Amino acid sequence: MNLFNKESPEFLVISGPCAIESHSQLQSVLNSEVTPSLIRGGIYKMRTKKSSFQGLGPEGIEIIKNLKKTRPFKFITEITDPRQVDSLLPVIDCFQVGARNMYNYELLKELSKLKKPVLLKRGFSATINEWLGATDYLSDLGEENIYLCERGIRTFETKLRNTLDLGAVMYLKKNHPFKVFVDPSHAMGDSKYVEQASLAALASGADGILVEVHPQPNQALSDPEQALDLKMYQELIHKLDRACPIFEKKLRV
Amino acid sequence: MNLFNKESPEFLVISGPCAIESHSQLQSVLNSEVTPSLIRGGIYKMRTKKSSFQGLGPEGIEIIKNLKKTRPFKFITEITDPRQVDSLLPVIDCFQVGARNMYNYELLKELSKLKKPVLLKRGFSATINEWLGATDYLSDLGEENIYLCERGIRTFETKLRNTLDLGAVMYLKKNHPFKVFVDPSHAMGDSKYVEQASLAALASGADGILVEVHPQPNQALSDPEQALDLKMYQELIHKLDRACPIFEKKLRV
Amino acid sequence: MNLFNKESPEFLVISGPCAIESHSQLQSVLNSEVTPSLIRGGIYKMRTKKSSFQGLGPEGIEIIKNLKKTRPFKFITEITDPRQVDSLLPVIDCFQVGARNMYNYELLKELSKLKKPVLLKRGFSATINEWLGATDYLSDLGEENIYLCERGIRTFETKLRNTLDLGAVMYLKKNHPFKVFVDPSHAMGDSKYVEQASLAALASGADGILVEVHPQPNQALSDPEQALDLKMYQELIHKLDRACPIFEKKLRV
Amino acid sequence: MNLFNKESPEFLVISGPCAIESHSQLQSVLNSEVTPSLIRGGIYKMRTKKSSFQGLGPEGIEIIKNLKKTRPFKFITEITDPRQVDSLLPVIDCFQVGARNMYNYELLKELSKLKKPVLLKRGFSATINEWLGATDYLSDLGEENIYLCERGIRTFETKLRNTLDLGAVMYLKKNHPFKVFVDPSHAMGDSKYVEQASLAALASGADGILVEVHPQPNQALSDPEQALDLKMYQELIHKLDRACPIFEKKLRV
Repeated sequence: MNLFNKESPEFLVISGPCAIESHSQLQSVLNSEVTPSLIRGGIYKMRTKKSSFQGLGPEGIEIIKNLKKTRPFKFITEITDPRQVDSLLPVIDCFQVGARNMYNYELLKELSKLKKPVLLKRGFSATINEWLGATDYLSDLGEENIYLCERGIRTFETKLRNTLDLGAVMYLKKNHPFKVFVDPSHAMGDSKYVEQASLAALASGADGILVEVHPQPNQALSDPEQALDLKMYQELIHKLDRACPIFEKKLRV
Repeated sequence: MNLFNKESPEFLVISGPCAIESHSQLQSVLNSEVTPSLIRGGIYKMRTKKSSFQGLGPEGIEIIKNLKKTRPFKFITEITDPRQVDSLLPVIDCFQVGARNMYNYELLKELSKLKKPVLLKRGFSATINEWLGATDYLSDLGEENIYLCERGIRTFETKLRNTLDLGAVMYLKKNHPFKVFVDPSHAMGDSKYVEQASLAALASGADGILVEVHPQPNQALSDPEQALDLKMYQELIHKLDRACPIFEKKLRV
Repeated sequence: MNLFNKESPEFLVISGPCAIESHSQLQSVLNSEVTPSLIRGGIYKMRTKKSSFQGLGPEGIEIIKNLKKTRPFKFITEITDPRQVDSLLPVIDCFQVGARNMYNYELLKELSKLKKPVLLKRGFSATINEWLGATDYLSDLGEENIYLCERGIRTFETKLRNTLDLGAVMYLKKNHPFKVFVDPSHAMGDSKYVEQASLAALASGADGILVEVHPQPNQALSDPEQALDLKMYQELIHKLDRACPIFEKKLRV
Repeated sequence: MNLFNKESPEFLVISGPCAIESHSQLQSVLNSEVTPSLIRGGIYKMRTKKSSFQGLGPEGIEIIKNLKKTRPFKFITEITDPRQVDSLLPVIDCFQVGARNMYNYELLKELSKLKKPVLLKRGFSATINEWLGATDYLSDLGEENIYLCERGIRTFETKLRNTLDLGAVMYLKKNHPFKVFVDPSHAMGDSKYVEQASLAALASGADGILVEVHPQPNQALSDPEQALDLKMYQELIHKLDRACPIFEKKLRV
């Protein structure tokens, strides 16, 4: 069930829209020149404001089901409530637990019973110790199926959406067995910094990134400013491909 | 269903053990000279470590049921999962949503459907805006049934468990309609500071406190260092009683 | 040289304008009904922007000299450079070291050689340990002449100018010999919260406050929004006077 | 007077011991296989504790004077007091202003009058806006002679000494004209993370690093755990040399 191949150190790029909005939207991403095979996309969204777009829900699940009939890809999405398990299980290859649910231990306990890897985002003010504490609730999955994801922490600085803590990535890779991802899109909150943040993540020892891509970012229903368009996405993959050998990693998209 | 009396500005002291451990433990608190009528106590605990005491669960609910037969009191406890609603509903008078669940919007949506006030703790790194955003998910309850509770925020300072943000209390009371509580026990993390923190909360305009009391703090199964013993508790109530008139509040325990 | 009387626990209110702007401005404060005898006022200002008003400098010193001829008061002002010592020494009764100079150890070493108390503001992100470390550089003055002043710390919250850390006040008073002040004006950044913050400081065990007062706040050359006008100031003193006995303190203005 | 060559984008490695301890110590660094030509070393140290080693002072200046007679190198050191200008001016090629002096505007005003570049470290809780505000005090030098240096900020996380804020580097490089350095030694506080942090800095668009190197780190009088030994240093330079072309930079040591 693991997303990684065992043989060689890989750098995985998991990409897709913040929220799944339609069949054609996701198909556009899948049809990009880069031909991604690791897709992320939100079905149930957690929104600070009740009035914001909360995701397509069951309709989004149908979209994935239909797309999976036409081509092979791995699908990762966020789960926000233990009661969503049954409907998500048939379409997903990896559960994502969002930053605001890192402390939702009841949810983690449910996920630990399933046979799917879990990508556990760091709470935006979680200490590394608390993050590792949350992995204990997932330990039945086996350490190879627990992926950590740094997505920026909250500090006093407000110029960027969050403060990307690459030191945490370095620390975790040197001291713990887990794969560590970086989400440059949420960390930076602005697509123009995503490429550099991704390269810095690679240089920091990360095992992959989780990056937002949208065919028309300015029409995205959530976080429009941080999604890459298809051209920027292609350029990012090109740069990572050049840089991976320096860091002894094999790129997989 | 509101815990407050409408007529006059009150200062409510909600007290009890961090976790309900036994019938006799809670009875000791109820039998203290102060005779509290607003009781808090944990049944389902959220613990950073999976191996820590996680609360009595259903057994705790039975303890409350039995005690309520012998004497009248209001009971407040934390809910950590939407699936606990049915069992908690018969024994509680106010739901508490803990700091780590402030962003658990699925849980808030469930609580908004019930006819019980909700005490919503501030996430320990939640901005005031995010905290107010979470109240939107509860708006069906009516603003008089949404109680906010400041319990200390996370900063760089580590001498005390958290940094009590009384400025947030002042801000909220001047700009919003909600009742605002302070939890001096979690904020300070040490019983010797609880009295001063409670008085400072009163001076800041808070409508009440949520304070941990345990008949034998050093034997508490969770957070032993921050619970008041019955003597300290009595002393606290005495001091608050003297100070309330200065701040034009009526003390209710 | 100490500002405090030894006999009884006092609560000192040190008040005056953020910056001294003119003889008449300061005289208006001195002539308020409250008749303050502990005056603060900036002569050399530290400003984030080079283009902001930087204080009157030597002209401000002359204003104090002249006013001191007409009536007795103690004067406190900030020193920002060791080279200002000679000119300030004749007019001041207590040096203030601002938050941004808490780590300016060369300045502290100079002040430790003089025979004047020093009010040492906490750096806005200084840990309590660092703050205490800075007092070591002043230890030649004797602990009774070192006054600490909490003025709000920097956190992720931006609704108010700073996050007033009254827990630090409680911690210091229980564990260290120094007098501890609170600056509610800089902490809150808005005059409408100053009264409550001052009362909360008293409740927290502080030995006094440092509060900004200006005859016409909306014409102040620096920080106009946080200065009390003379009426608010009078009201504050009245409230503190009522509350002091509860906390076993004697008010001195 | 600029340390950078105008023609091509360079990545500068400024290296040397945290504090200059002796002639032979610094000579060992200069004699390393890497043959560094951009040397940093502390003469006046700012220490949180008064009892810590405060630097050699004038004796350190003599050491530099003598070494400069034997071989050419550029020398960078921290200035902590305007009164040190005269003695430092003859031996230094670039002034360093430390994190704790970023707000020391009196010092910055003095440095703006001299004809030397200034490397301005970010205060460990300074916002980017405040950092840029401090550059205003240096504007007489010309923007090409103002170097910013990110050295980690203070957050709630304590596993590493500081939180390296590479987002700030990306932001500054995209929006402002200044050269931006990174100090991986102070940011990480542990030599085993310095190589990755340096590579991540390069990937983030930084123009160089300021790195601590000591012939015998475990005998260093300050910050022994974060200095590279000569072998680690050589390995770092080797890795940077391989990576620079990917990021279109020319390495200069």
